[in-house]
Amino acid sequence: MTQALRLGIAGLGTVGVGVVKIVRRHADLLQARTGRPIVITAVSARDAAKDRGVNLSDYVWETDPVALAKRDDIDVFVELMGGENGPAKASVEAALASGKDVVTANKALLAIHGQDLAEQAEATGRVIRFEAAVAGGIPVIKSLTEGLAGNEITRVMGVMNGTCNYILTRMQSQELGYNALFEECAQLGYLEADPNLDVGGIDAAHKLALLSSIAFGTKPNFDGIQIEGIQHISLDDIHQAADMGYRIKLLGVAQRSARGLEQRMQPCLVPSASALGQLEGGTNMVVIEGDAVDQVVLRGPGAGEGPTASAVMGDVCDLARGLQISTFGRPATSLQEATPAITGLPAPYYLRLALFDKPGALAKVAAILGDAGVSIDRMRQYGHSESTAPVLIVTHKTTRATLDVALEGFRATDVVSGEPVALRIEEV
Amino acid sequence: MTQALRLGIAGLGTVGVGVVKIVRRHADLLQARTGRPIVITAVSARDAAKDRGVNLSDYVWETDPVALAKRDDIDVFVELMGGENGPAKASVEAALASGKDVVTANKALLAIHGQDLAEQAEATGRVIRFEAAVAGGIPVIKSLTEGLAGNEITRVMGVMNGTCNYILTRMQSQELGYNALFEECAQLGYLEADPNLDVGGIDAAHKLALLSSIAFGTKPNFDGIQIEGIQHISLDDIHQAADMGYRIKLLGVAQRSARGLEQRMQPCLVPSASALGQLEGGTNMVVIEGDAVDQVVLRGPGAGEGPTASAVMGDVCDLARGLQISTFGRPATSLQEATPAITGLPAPYYLRLALFDKPGALAKVAAILGDAGVSIDRMRQYGHSESTAPVLIVTHKTTRATLDVALEGFRATDVVSGEPVALRIEEV
Repeated sequence: MTQALRLGIAGLGTVGVGVVKIVRRHADLLQARTGRPIVITAVSARDAAKDRGVNLSDYVWETDPVALAKRDDIDVFVELMGGENGPAKASVEAALASGKDVVTANKALLAIHGQDLAEQAEATGRVIRFEAAVAGGIPVIKSLTEGLAGNEITRVMGVMNGTCNYILTRMQSQELGYNALFEECAQLGYLEADPNLDVGGIDAAHKLALLSSIAFGTKPNFDGIQIEGIQHISLDDIHQAADMGYRIKLLGVAQRSARGLEQRMQPCLVPSASALGQLEGGTNMVVIEGDAVDQVVLRGPGAGEGPTASAVMGDVCDLARGLQISTFGRPATSLQEATPAITGLPAPYYLRLALFDKPGALAKVAAILGDAGVSIDRMRQYGHSESTAPVLIVTHKTTRATLDVALEGFRATDVVSGEPVALRIEEV
Repeated sequence: MTQALRLGIAGLGTVGVGVVKIVRRHADLLQARTGRPIVITAVSARDAAKDRGVNLSDYVWETDPVALAKRDDIDVFVELMGGENGPAKASVEAALASGKDVVTANKALLAIHGQDLAEQAEATGRVIRFEAAVAGGIPVIKSLTEGLAGNEITRVMGVMNGTCNYILTRMQSQELGYNALFEECAQLGYLEADPNLDVGGIDAAHKLALLSSIAFGTKPNFDGIQIEGIQHISLDDIHQAADMGYRIKLLGVAQRSARGLEQRMQPCLVPSASALGQLEGGTNMVVIEGDAVDQVVLRGPGAGEGPTASAVMGDVCDLARGLQISTFGRPATSLQEATPAITGLPAPYYLRLALFDKPGALAKVAAILGDAGVSIDRMRQYGHSESTAPVLIVTHKTTRATLDVALEGFRATDVVSGEPVALRIEEV
């Protein structure tokens, strides 16, 4: 195949500009590797006048991304606008309907509408590729879908929101509280327009839904993900978890068991010495566990112009090379409904309580745990000046349901002040 | 494509048996993912009588792997015998000549004969896949060839021999000397038949030659690799490097500069806190740096039945899915001759000297470095009982050529006892 692969790029933000730069800078390299020229035919973005620091004069400018997607002179529609509905969805549908392959970085679109879009792509014999939608520059979609295809995947997990990891690691290292760091991230432009997408865990959960679908052959099921953000993580928890040998991470975990498919995106404790525990700042990490390979760990930049554009171009090069694969690694029509696990797999938990300083307080707490059937691995009571004493407990493995009984007991008793903190300890 | 993909497997050692197990255990899963059945038609190994713990009765037994490779009833020849010549080479050539695709775990074969074999494959329109040849279960060949295809690769490096990393980390943690650990590895069966392949760095260098070819579009050039084993690493170096904040790793580095292509496989110092520094035991790690993605780190099991078979099956699944790609990521006939760099890029170095305990000794050493043009970053002289005092020096960046002048000076002077130790400090 020596005819050029012609791209139409919708969205010229950071990532779109990064893609344009690579196509221009590496024209020869890309042709040498893929055997054909990769060119940009047309582009689309909100503001045609804006100076984006790259020369766009060679490209047709379309004001309407749907019109761009339908053009006869493009082979691949590159969707980099974002948003789960609106122009992104409309233009991807138009591209598939008019026989174009699609490359997108849009995790929200695929987490919500991925099943319908994958079925539509198959009906028209096209493919949707989305390496850039998950963990930025890390080739995790390819590793999971292709490289580890010989494995039954047992668990996939990862830190997939750089902003949250930046906040949590800075809380650890700089002794700064959540609110101060949230403000700092806002200043630095690290936050989505709706910050809750980041700190609320939604952006990372979108990514988990996609990994989960590939790993377990199930339809993407974003609604089945138990999501909890980092807004309530306190410096006390950061420090006291560290004191017990743990780090707190916003960790996404997808795991299938007899109970069904478990998908969690929540702050968890992981051992300080583990690869996940050591992950600092905005870097992402995905851990894939399979029955043959045991465990593979992938680490890299989770965002940014270069890394995300690198992922987009990986997909584009695959298409230029004629490598085509089903959107979620197997025919969309064969994907199973994901049956969410009723209760999650048992795990140890970290509990932090503020005990009123009265005789027998600790005994009552211990009794409540015992009555609920939660056994204690480690317990620490800290010295204190106020009227309440901080108490840390690491439990042995228990189900969340069992733990909730104990938490109810704490709320009912007269020795615990305020709401108890309970965080899962993920074994990694 | 619904007809089965038919495999012929030559070599039923650990990896071959692992592949048979996966094909049998995951028949349904593999078909669901690739859209067609993957079956084993025929196998070949030295000893037909040996019980390998898997049922081979369904498969045709060929005593001659070349005959197996030529069979009309196989589509893919899976070469798991090893060895750079002999039956492995003969059977791979026979497979390509008779129109079969080849999947192999044979790093030696491809490092030495990869160019010829790749050209032969292209001439017959077939492909050679070798994910299992480098870093066991880590999908590094796929990540480098496909996932990061949009990048100009600036450096690829890694710890790719688990046995050497096991020895070096045990020297660190257990205070055991090299010889004791070499014996232990021999007992545990961690060593190749020719142990020098492991501890001499040759096995890892074979792998580096393959990564280097893909990264830089050059013909595999094993002879161009500067190879140094770990046999001479002493406990003193392990401890004193640690004392300076470093770990010693057998690190492979491939890097291209104006000087040419630099390929090194040698013991290096890396920061203790770095991902490479933290790598323990038999695990492998590959670091890929590109102009767009910055840095991606891949970690996983470097050997063993399951992980290596997982890599083989990743390639097999690609072939079942119809994903075909040039052996080294671009047409073999377009690969350039690798021009080895005359002198390597500058780096800081770790030096350990034993100084005779006489006035002015340290001054002489400092003068020799100064005269050679090597400037000192840090220097430590340790307390001592013997007649010689251990002195550690970390230099500023210098070329090996410049350093060699200083080393000559040390050998010529009367204040340095024995051979000075000089190890490169790789910036990671």
